[in-house]
Amino acid sequence: MQADHIFTNARLATMDPALPGLGAVEHGVVAERAGRIIYAGPVRAFDAAKTTDCGGRWITPGLIDCHTHLVFAGNRAGEFAARLKGATYEDIARAGGGIASTVQATRAASDADLHAASLVRLNALIAEGVTTVEIKSGYGLSAESELKLLRVIAALGEVAGVDISSSFLGAHSLPPEFANNRAGYLDLLCDTLIPQIATQKLADSVDGFCEGIAFLPDEITRVFTAAAAHGLRVKLHADQLSNLHGAALAASFGALSADHLEYTDDAGAAAMAAAGTVAVLLPGAFYSLRETRMPPIAALRAHGVKIAVSTDLNPGTSPLNSLLLAMNMAATQFRLTVEECLLGVTRNAAAALGRADVGTLKPGAKCHLAIWDIKDPAELVYNIGFNPLYRRIWSHA
Amino acid sequence: MQADHIFTNARLATMDPALPGLGAVEHGVVAERAGRIIYAGPVRAFDAAKTTDCGGRWITPGLIDCHTHLVFAGNRAGEFAARLKGATYEDIARAGGGIASTVQATRAASDADLHAASLVRLNALIAEGVTTVEIKSGYGLSAESELKLLRVIAALGEVAGVDISSSFLGAHSLPPEFANNRAGYLDLLCDTLIPQIATQKLADSVDGFCEGIAFLPDEITRVFTAAAAHGLRVKLHADQLSNLHGAALAASFGALSADHLEYTDDAGAAAMAAAGTVAVLLPGAFYSLRETRMPPIAALRAHGVKIAVSTDLNPGTSPLNSLLLAMNMAATQFRLTVEECLLGVTRNAAAALGRADVGTLKPGAKCHLAIWDIKDPAELVYNIGFNPLYRRIWSHA
Ligand SMILES: [Zn+2]
Ligand SMILES: [Zn+2]
Repeated sequence: MQADHIFTNARLATMDPALPGLGAVEHGVVAERAGRIIYAGPVRAFDAAKTTDCGGRWITPGLIDCHTHLVFAGNRAGEFAARLKGATYEDIARAGGGIASTVQATRAASDADLHAASLVRLNALIAEGVTTVEIKSGYGLSAESELKLLRVIAALGEVAGVDISSSFLGAHSLPPEFANNRAGYLDLLCDTLIPQIATQKLADSVDGFCEGIAFLPDEITRVFTAAAAHGLRVKLHADQLSNLHGAALAASFGALSADHLEYTDDAGAAAMAAAGTVAVLLPGAFYSLRETRMPPIAALRAHGVKIAVSTDLNPGTSPLNSLLLAMNMAATQFRLTVEECLLGVTRNAAAALGRADVGTLKPGAKCHLAIWDIKDPAELVYNIGFNPLYRRIWSHA
Repeated sequence: MQADHIFTNARLATMDPALPGLGAVEHGVVAERAGRIIYAGPVRAFDAAKTTDCGGRWITPGLIDCHTHLVFAGNRAGEFAARLKGATYEDIARAGGGIASTVQATRAASDADLHAASLVRLNALIAEGVTTVEIKSGYGLSAESELKLLRVIAALGEVAGVDISSSFLGAHSLPPEFANNRAGYLDLLCDTLIPQIATQKLADSVDGFCEGIAFLPDEITRVFTAAAAHGLRVKLHADQLSNLHGAALAASFGALSADHLEYTDDAGAAAMAAAGTVAVLLPGAFYSLRETRMPPIAALRAHGVKIAVSTDLNPGTSPLNSLLLAMNMAATQFRLTVEECLLGVTRNAAAALGRADVGTLKPGAKCHLAIWDIKDPAELVYNIGFNPLYRRIWSHA
């Protein structure tokens, strides 16, 4: 059989859903042709133009960070320091801090400055074997600046050598210009921006933040109805700080994912399972906010909801720039198993993005690989702040 | 003034105790001669053989990880995975796991294998701007294998280009050979090993683990008495899981540090202050063990105890291989301020090792520097899993 490149002498975590657990193959080979995997399984012979001997190392699919807000300007280190000295979130908001400061800095930044600042964060993820990253807009909150964010997001992938999935998160926070006109902002989102984004294919999905401090369920319903009318899939920041039944709302729109979920109830988990909506858990926000209310892991398992794990990389509630560490936090804090964590940054993270061509080593998938200097895949979850990546393969397929 | 190397166009966090906070100098220069800092302060002219323009970046002293167990063989990722699937610590101990498995693997490992495995972990610390690392023995627990550990520890520094401080932690855990003969093991430690280590200068200090599951206060007293008799300074794992008044015991021996301290009471903090014993906080163990009992931060502050922060890097309770992340954990979990965290990995970490020649940018100190791509030192604590190191200088002085 003909291949462009084969990876021999490898142990594989194929993430093949037809196999148990991680779909492990102890004596394996991966074969690539034209950027796609044509074989991943037990050793067999190929007529290959190029051979890489992996020296017995483990190969996983390239990792997928399926929930980030990594395009923004400024940072909130000063606020972080102030809070440790006793300032409250209210003190900081009164001083113009919080998300308002990020929106202000992001609006003021040029495309080039936003690109440069974001590329540093994106490259840190890439250095851990990440080959697909979802990035949300949502720090512009005006037509002009949200479109700028989507433009910058789209340009990053080609430069960095990574697959990008973009989400339009206009419904992140009410911008100051609309402080007394919530309906007017929803008009802008639903009647102007979503149609334009759909027509010009400027984002892959539409996201929202459903919470008392952000947008209420009936407002999210309006946004999702507009998205659906224009053929865009949706996802939702749901039930993080209170139970507004956001998970069930997302499921009712066939959402790709509902994310956070600390306050989601059993009915919410059941609705997600029925709709095939992925649960994206974000342990970095839980850690940074010192939350104590755990996502309903038992209910998600009982209903068979697919679980993904992500960084939620953002300057306020989760300045977490490591997907490996997100896995450790999901295991340590939420008691996810090693298999759940690893499926959560590969196959199930792909599902949260509606992608069938990444997240496994199955034939037909893009040949995105992470090759690791480890003896046991559990080491990827167990180590804290240690990166055993040996080599990353991102294929322009 | 003559210098070998000057670092210009820099912002300095000198950690000078004569200055408030981090001892910041906004428009600064550092001058080095023969491996030592001869000047660090506001811009002034030098006749220098070499000039490095820092481009406005921040310089801190090279970081100091003052409490690690990074020399060991094997890893415990399998146990970590088993615990997430429901295995108890007792299940694992019955199956030969826990510290016993690390001792067995470490005893079986050759010097070369131990060196190679440990160098990977040490290099990960170094990549974050660490220039001084304390490493403990304690996974040998026999004369032969404890001396092997001290030999490997001593050899690592020269190879890796880092200052090493070594601690003899024979009093870590009772070895299986002495399961019914605690006094016999203490005889070995106090009558044979400590005298030999002191005479041959095989370690810089003597450490112990004071806890119901390890060694009781009267046993630690015997070990510390032997150390003192042979002129060795001491430090102690104290009050981590219960209050055996280990901090006060350590202070009564003029210990360099007492470490962990979750259960230390006000009298313990007062005793440490009086003795000049540094409090070494280990938030990685707190995080990994999902502890809820906080070290007595308010009492430490009230009594003026110096606070250091360290990884406790070890395969069981803190597989944390990042000192930057240890700072974030100390801030997030323990509410240390940014200044406390940064002093805790520089000036106060040096104090925990009895070192006056590292940890600040004062004239006379070794020219160990970390140069950072940041706008605010708070970023070093705020970011989670992100390393903004620009350049590290370790001077063979
Ligand atoms: Zn988010
Ligand atoms: Zn320790």
